[in-house]
Parts: sequence; structure tokens; C-alpha cells
Amino acid sequence: MPELRHDPIQRRWVIIATERGRRPDDFPRNEPEPTGGFCPFCEGNESKTPPEITAIRNGTGANQPGWEVRVVPNKFPALRIEGGLNRRGIGAYDQMNGVGAHEVIIETPKHSLQLADAPLEHIQKVLRIYRERLVDLLRDQRFKYVLIFKNHGAAAGASLSHPHTQLIATPVTPLTISEELNSAQDHYREKERCLFCDLIEQELDSGQRIVIAGDQFVALTPFASRFPFEIFIAPRNHHHSFAEITDSMLNSLAAVLKEVLLRVKKCLKDPPYNFLIHTIPNLQAGRSHGGHWETIEQDYHWHIEFIPRLTQVAGFEWGTGFYINPTAPEEAAKYLRETEL
Amino acid sequence: MPELRHDPIQRRWVIIATERGRRPDDFPRNEPEPTGGFCPFCEGNESKTPPEITAIRNGTGANQPGWEVRVVPNKFPALRIEGGLNRRGIGAYDQMNGVGAHEVIIETPKHSLQLADAPLEHIQKVLRIYRERLVDLLRDQRFKYVLIFKNHGAAAGASLSHPHTQLIATPVTPLTISEELNSAQDHYREKERCLFCDLIEQELDSGQRIVIAGDQFVALTPFASRFPFEIFIAPRNHHHSFAEITDSMLNSLAAVLKEVLLRVKKCLKDPPYNFLIHTIPNLQAGRSHGGHWETIEQDYHWHIEFIPRLTQVAGFEWGTGFYINPTAPEEAAKYLRETEL
Repeated sequence: MPELRHDPIQRRWVIIATERGRRPDDFPRNEPEPTGGFCPFCEGNESKTPPEITAIRNGTGANQPGWEVRVVPNKFPALRIEGGLNRRGIGAYDQMNGVGAHEVIIETPKHSLQLADAPLEHIQKVLRIYRERLVDLLRDQRFKYVLIFKNHGAAAGASLSHPHTQLIATPVTPLTISEELNSAQDHYREKERCLFCDLIEQELDSGQRIVIAGDQFVALTPFASRFPFEIFIAPRNHHHSFAEITDSMLNSLAAVLKEVLLRVKKCLKDPPYNFLIHTIPNLQAGRSHGGHWETIEQDYHWHIEFIPRLTQVAGFEWGTGFYINPTAPEEAAKYLRETEL
Repeated sequence: MPELRHDPIQRRWVIIATERGRRPDDFPRNEPEPTGGFCPFCEGNESKTPPEITAIRNGTGANQPGWEVRVVPNKFPALRIEGGLNRRGIGAYDQMNGVGAHEVIIETPKHSLQLADAPLEHIQKVLRIYRERLVDLLRDQRFKYVLIFKNHGAAAGASLSHPHTQLIATPVTPLTISEELNSAQDHYREKERCLFCDLIEQELDSGQRIVIAGDQFVALTPFASRFPFEIFIAPRNHHHSFAEITDSMLNSLAAVLKEVLLRVKKCLKDPPYNFLIHTIPNLQAGRSHGGHWETIEQDYHWHIEFIPRLTQVAGFEWGTGFYINPTAPEEAAKYLRETEL
């Protein structure tokens, strides 16, 4: 059983994936991205993944060819879906069972069709599946948070090159999310306005860090970007939860996401990247360790964090949470805006 | 002038190193570690670095050959030593000038002599230079924090392979340090004991995560290690500041550090790594943004964080501060202890 362990100094939870049990010889140097070999995510190889959770299909049966987007449990899950949390102390430490969900959203049956190049209608379907899985997992009150994230390229942590997104449901709210919630709540208490709405308005007024200003969504390079060409995508109006996104907003998001992906791909020569959806925690599951926020519909604003992986993160960043970014976000936004598609 | 910018959502400072001004084409893929070419850190090339700040020399003049350890300003500094902070607001944002120090400690004149393989007496000299630079920079009241860190190997962020350590003095206390200080202070307020001392005692009692239990220092794999084979090195007794380390303790630390480096090198086949010294902020420089701690001699405990770089950090970790570690720290400690030197 994987374990969740709490660090009393940095106050963060860590998953100890004991069943992966990697030994000293299990960390190959310059891990090559598998190419040309067998791919369990390709159409026709459905029997090589665990049975599917859901799929968008054209009338074919589960675990058969004939799908457009397919969701399966991760074959090597970091967390296990069965069982109770069994929270316990070990001297000064806190521990619980590694209960959670770990799923893979296979974005397309085609091995080499990057999300950036998929038709708009297809990206809409992928986003609909994100929403469907999120809504479904939020019904499980053991799960405080559901994180949807994509790793593109080996240097961004992708172990398979076939386009896919991952989803992890956890029994704790991750530290970064708690911190964002705390900032947002402090701002709301003081001003009765959403912090994110205020920042988006200031950015739209200034314009210098805007990449895309759509009708419903904005894409911009944050004022204090940690990484070169980091991009923040958010609804222009106040919305606290990705689970509640409407079909119309979802279609607008697909268009903005596709444009961001294409601009990044062209401007930065198809770099490895990560993106992540930050949405509110599972309000049904109650307060989480470390979080002292109250109901947060009015003060949190869901968004996507998009990070091209252009530089190696060095010791300075790890040890301090203090980043050195060699590209001013105003410059990055300008390069991205001026990229011809 | 580089800028320091504050993120109002995640409440962290970022250095925007505008003078580096990296453009889209400036991020080469698979950046190769320079080998065989010219090295500005080698003996005889002293004129190729900025003039030295200090050095351990055998009677030779500054910026000449004949040194054992040499400290120079970073040729491409992330922060600049001259000028005032000029703190200012930009709408909802905070900004100040990127004032600070960025130095390189060249650990040896020999290009290929890794710190792990240097004689014990030489490692003692390197640590003495760390202390000397720290003490000197803490006199400057503009600097709230001095971070000493080493990147070994290109995958750990080292751009030159000649053994060196870096030092950055900053006008703000980094977020991770503030969080550690807050945890330590909360614990002290409640229990009138040091959190770190408590954890070290519990670890020595249990023994299962101990790598080295020396007379004055302990090396262990933390209970909630974020990374496989992560190691924590700290004085066994309570000491709050690396700047105040005695010569005798410094010699003990050199022995434990050398043993850690050798065990990691042998057990994990010379992996890339980072290490960082976490010590208290500059108490002379006053409170820092984000920190609400009081005087902290009694509750903070300096230590070294040592991280082999064995896995790619993926989107999940970036976006959440929530880590998946595939090796249980008890297993890692056992492998390291059982490595024959």
C-alpha cells in the first residue's frame, strides 16, 4: 500500500510509492523516450491497459477499437482506490494510507497527433472528459482534491510519448493550492473582491503581458513568472470550479488552449511542457489539513498553469522556493503574440 | 538592473534577470556539459574570471596561480551588488531592484577533482570559505538571507563541470525558509523545544532512516522525503546558524559530508546532485516580508539538504508542491549504509 507522509518542517504531504520500490540501479541516466516500440495507448492495444473507466466511442464496445478519447486507470498507480485512510501518528510524524485515484486520459488513438495539432472539436472532447472525470471523482468524499495535469516530452516527466493527460485524486489538499486559497481568502476578506479578478483586470488594462484576450478566457505571462514563457490561462469572469464549466465556456477554452499550444510550439520549437488545472478543493469532503479557509466560491478563481520546460531547475530553486527567471514576462508575451501561426 | 517581483497569489519572490534577456532561440535542447574546452575556473586562467573576493593561497598574489580555494563574483550575476532596493508597488504588485550578491566558490584548482574525492583537509578548507563568505555578507544589512548551494552535473543545473559552489545573498527571505521558520517557531511556542532537535532524537532512537550517526553530526533520509535518496545533514546538538560553526564542528562536518558524498557516488553511480545550507536569516537586517517569526536562535536549527537528481520532476510536483517518491526513505538509508566504501 502506498503511504502518505507529512513533513512537520515544511508541512507538506509526500506520497511514498512503496510498491514502485525503486532501488539504486533503477534510475537510468538519460532515460530515453521510448520510440518505435510497442505503445499500450495506441488503437488496437486496448487489452494492454487496465479496463477503461470511460471513453468517447462511436458505437463500439468498451475496450475495443473505435474510440476518440479513452480513460483508463494508471497501470502503476501512485495511489490506490480501495480502502480507508487509517490516519495515524508515528511519534512526531503523521501518516495515512495512500488512498486515491490515478487515471490516464488517452487524448487520441493516434500515436503522433499532439494536442496542439488536434482539431478544435477534438480538443473540446478532451476537455469534456476532464470535466466528466472531475465531477465523478468529487462524489467520493475521501478525496479532497483532484489534480488534472499533462506532461509533454520526456524532459517534462512523460514516460510515454503517446499524447495523454493524467489525473490524481488525493485525500489531502496540496500545499500550493492551500497557499493560493489562503491568499485569495485574505484578499477577499479585506476587499470583498476576488484576487484573481483584480489581477486579470490590471493585466488587461496594461496589456503588456497578455498573450490572448479572448471573449471568455485570457492567457497571459504572470508578472512574477517563475519560469521563462510561463503562461496563466483563466476565465475572464469569476468562476471557482472547473467542474462547473459550461459547454459554451468549454468550447472557448478549447480555442484558447489550442492557440497557446500552437504559439508555444512554433515560438519555442516544440518544447517539453507541463500544464495543470488549479480548481477549488472538494467542498463536500470538508476542510483539509493545513487549510484554514472557509467556503471559497467567492474568492477562488480556477485557472490553468502552463510551463514550458526550457531550463534545468537548479539547487537554488529547490532549496528556497525562490526562482530566477532569465526572460522578462513582458518579453515572453511579446514573442508569443508576434509568433505567426 | 535585475528585478525582484512578488507573486501575490503564491506569495513568493522571483528574480527577473532581465539582463540575461533570454530569447526563444536561447534555450538549446539537451544542453551539453562543456568538456575538453576552455575552463575559466582552472589554475592559470585567473584572468578570465572577475577579480577574486578571497582565496586560500600559499603566499601568491591575488588573481595569480597558487591557490587552493578561490571565490569570485559570478560573471553573469542574477543579482547586482550596487544600489538601493527602491521598493515600489505597481498596481496590486510589489517590486524592488535586484540587489544582492552572487558569488562562485571554486573548490579546487583541479578541473576533475570532485568534492567527494578531495582530501578531508581540503573539504575543511572549502567549508571554512563558506563560513567566511557568509559572515562577511551578513554584515550588509540590505541582505536578509545568504544561500550557499552546490549544483553537481548538468542535470542538476551546473553549467560548468569544474567543481564549484554558489552563493546568493538576497534582500528577501526565501519562501521555503520562512515556512521552516514558522513551523519551528510554532513548535517552540507550544513545547519550548526545538522541532529539529525533537525529530533528530526520534530518528536516532528509531535508527531506520539513519545514514551516518557521527559524534557531532547526523545524516538521515527524512521521514517524508520528497525525492529518492534525499539526505538531511544537521548538527546533533542545537545550533541555529552556520555562520557560528566552530572549527571543531566544521572539521566534523567535513568528515560527514565527505562520507555522504562518497556513499551517494558509489551507491547511485555518481548521480547529479544539489546541496544547500539552510541557516537562519540575517537577524541584523530585521524582519522580512512574509515572515512573522520573532528572534529565532532557540527554535531554528541549521542543516544541509542534499538531493540526488535521479528522477524528472513532472507537472504534478510543480503545480502542487506535492511529491511522489518511488523509494521509501528507510530503503534508501539501508542502501546507503550498506554501500561499501
